[in-house]
Amino acid sequence: MPQESLQALFSLFVVFAAAKVGEEIFERLGQPPLVGQILLGFLVGPGALHWVAPSPVLDFMAEIGVIFLLFETGLETQPEEILRYGYLSFAVALLGVVTPFVVGWWFAAAMGENAVTAQFVGTLLVATSIGITAKILEDFGATHTAFGHVILGAAVLDDILGLLALSALASFTSPRVKVANLLLTVAFVAGFVVLVLVLRRTAFPRVTRRLRDLRARAPIWSTALVLLLGFSAMSAYIGMAAIIGAFLAGMFVSERRDVAESVQAQASAVSSFLVPFFLANIGLRVSLGTMAHGHGLILLAAITGIAIATKLAACSLASLPLGRRSALLVGLGMIPRGEVGIVVAGQSLRIPAIPTSYYDIGIGMAVLTSLIGPLLLRLVLRPQRRPSVPGVSGRRVLRER
Amino acid sequence: MPQESLQALFSLFVVFAAAKVGEEIFERLGQPPLVGQILLGFLVGPGALHWVAPSPVLDFMAEIGVIFLLFETGLETQPEEILRYGYLSFAVALLGVVTPFVVGWWFAAAMGENAVTAQFVGTLLVATSIGITAKILEDFGATHTAFGHVILGAAVLDDILGLLALSALASFTSPRVKVANLLLTVAFVAGFVVLVLVLRRTAFPRVTRRLRDLRARAPIWSTALVLLLGFSAMSAYIGMAAIIGAFLAGMFVSERRDVAESVQAQASAVSSFLVPFFLANIGLRVSLGTMAHGHGLILLAAITGIAIATKLAACSLASLPLGRRSALLVGLGMIPRGEVGIVVAGQSLRIPAIPTSYYDIGIGMAVLTSLIGPLLLRLVLRPQRRPSVPGVSGRRVLRER
Repeated sequence: MPQESLQALFSLFVVFAAAKVGEEIFERLGQPPLVGQILLGFLVGPGALHWVAPSPVLDFMAEIGVIFLLFETGLETQPEEILRYGYLSFAVALLGVVTPFVVGWWFAAAMGENAVTAQFVGTLLVATSIGITAKILEDFGATHTAFGHVILGAAVLDDILGLLALSALASFTSPRVKVANLLLTVAFVAGFVVLVLVLRRTAFPRVTRRLRDLRARAPIWSTALVLLLGFSAMSAYIGMAAIIGAFLAGMFVSERRDVAESVQAQASAVSSFLVPFFLANIGLRVSLGTMAHGHGLILLAAITGIAIATKLAACSLASLPLGRRSALLVGLGMIPRGEVGIVVAGQSLRIPAIPTSYYDIGIGMAVLTSLIGPLLLRLVLRPQRRPSVPGVSGRRVLRER
Repeated sequence: MPQESLQALFSLFVVFAAAKVGEEIFERLGQPPLVGQILLGFLVGPGALHWVAPSPVLDFMAEIGVIFLLFETGLETQPEEILRYGYLSFAVALLGVVTPFVVGWWFAAAMGENAVTAQFVGTLLVATSIGITAKILEDFGATHTAFGHVILGAAVLDDILGLLALSALASFTSPRVKVANLLLTVAFVAGFVVLVLVLRRTAFPRVTRRLRDLRARAPIWSTALVLLLGFSAMSAYIGMAAIIGAFLAGMFVSERRDVAESVQAQASAVSSFLVPFFLANIGLRVSLGTMAHGHGLILLAAITGIAIATKLAACSLASLPLGRRSALLVGLGMIPRGEVGIVVAGQSLRIPAIPTSYYDIGIGMAVLTSLIGPLLLRLVLRPQRRPSVPGVSGRRVLRER
């Protein structure tokens, strides 16, 4: 009927089918499936075949896809697991934010770029993608390992630090962002997280008991969805990424084992539908515009190299107390910049002082680190589909029906 | 982060929570839950509290919501069930399309409206909402009754006839729509339906056997999703509503009982998330603009009355061979105009010859018939949550976990 609706449906079909084909191929090659999903997204996108173009509909599907991905990760996570290695996560996040920021800034300044551009390049390299990281942990069955907990905690913290850095960058466009506002954001974030963790222990178990009296369809699942959407909107409102709210909602529900298991099976059905859009949409963003001539390519290679080397070195160093092998895994796991890098790159278009070529370079760096990180991890770690803890195999059960 | 994303998340949260509250209240009142979902959508929308406004994001969620609703209905339907009463469905659809069209046209002409407006009013009254009808059958547990099969078959056929009427109306805006094109559309539609039904028996069982060898996550569910998106896009491409493709995709998969059952559980998880948006979004469309003064209200009442009386009389008459009670149920089930009426009303804004007040009247009629139809049905039929055929209780199993 309406033309837009046909185009939207066609792009959903192509992108979903492409992502699943990429996943299948990479599973068969023994490589991380998420890499295949990103690459096939690139293949059908404007960078290669151009069957589909980026669109608000695909961006929206990607956004709720990563929300469900983090919700699922939260469902499998007890806050205690994250807090046990809290000090390590904090060290990894802090060192892993400062090092790429300083080196990136220094590099751009040394290349003769202006101060705003130098700050942009630093900001671009700051934040690890929680979405990609969560997917890596899922693909490698490493959600319940010590290094998995450190990566997850550090990725959440560094996303918060990354958003603060982004706000500082945004002060070039709207001068109203001040230090006081940043501190207020930090206070809100801390308050929200503490509130969620307290309510989880106190109010949630009492409420759950009454859920079974509800007459509406799928009462438990529906309540989980209300919490998911509410926490995500609340996070975005106080200045965090929505996905952190989604992760908190998952952890909130995970308090009751029986509730978590029933919700897991259903969240898994939704995320099997939505997460491929998140991954393929990252590849879809790449167009080879500026990259065509040599200078752009060299700059991209240099910045990607810095992105990988600084994160790897800083995060491995900070997590050495876990042992050398685990420290290496933490460093590798923190490399991908994914959707966070893409968001920061997008901001560059609003700031006139930054050369437009840096948009393509930012996108390229975000995608390359998301591909190289998991591939390097794969060299150290064998992929493992079964969850490492028995009893959290909701997905497995559905798969084998 | 981006302002649009926060607003989108907030509206998803409000609309979903409102729809679930409406469902719960109407379940407790022993009334059709879909009526509660539409009414609560109205309550939070611009017609009342104005917490959220209609937006592309909500429209998109509603659209994929109704796609999953029809997919679910298709999963529970064997084509033979529909075809067994095919002759009755055809009679119900044809008489139920012609009568409201002629009476609506005559009424508007008698009121002194111009020829285009008269044709618009006729077209507005033509098509029953498949989405609302499918939801009614689900809520009343009537998917597997004889009158349920007649309603479903007739709703699908009359949607196709309604789209042809809409194309004829659209010829006032773009003069390129010709009778030859309409006939071509009919040929495509028939060809597509036959192709799907043939492949369902021949190719599908052979393909299914290989699905279990796939290594990608959730291979059966993913394949079902690829079919769903592909058939929906294909339907839209050849000029049918996308939801008819979704219904065909569901029937296609329902060929293999084991596949259908595993897919049903997962489709149910997705549609518990998405269908509330479809229902609440219908209520959200109502704003009381033109209705404020008396003339608009009287016209709305008259047109809604005609919409109800003509469908009820024509469809009951055509289905009399089923017996008087079932014939009454068919007539009542065909009353709701839902999303189809809203689409036709939207077209009026593109045609300058039609007074703008008819947009609000069209929306009002679509919403009122969607509320009154199920409420009248409820007077004749007790609600029944259990599916009437044992073994198709995927939803029930999930609910009781």
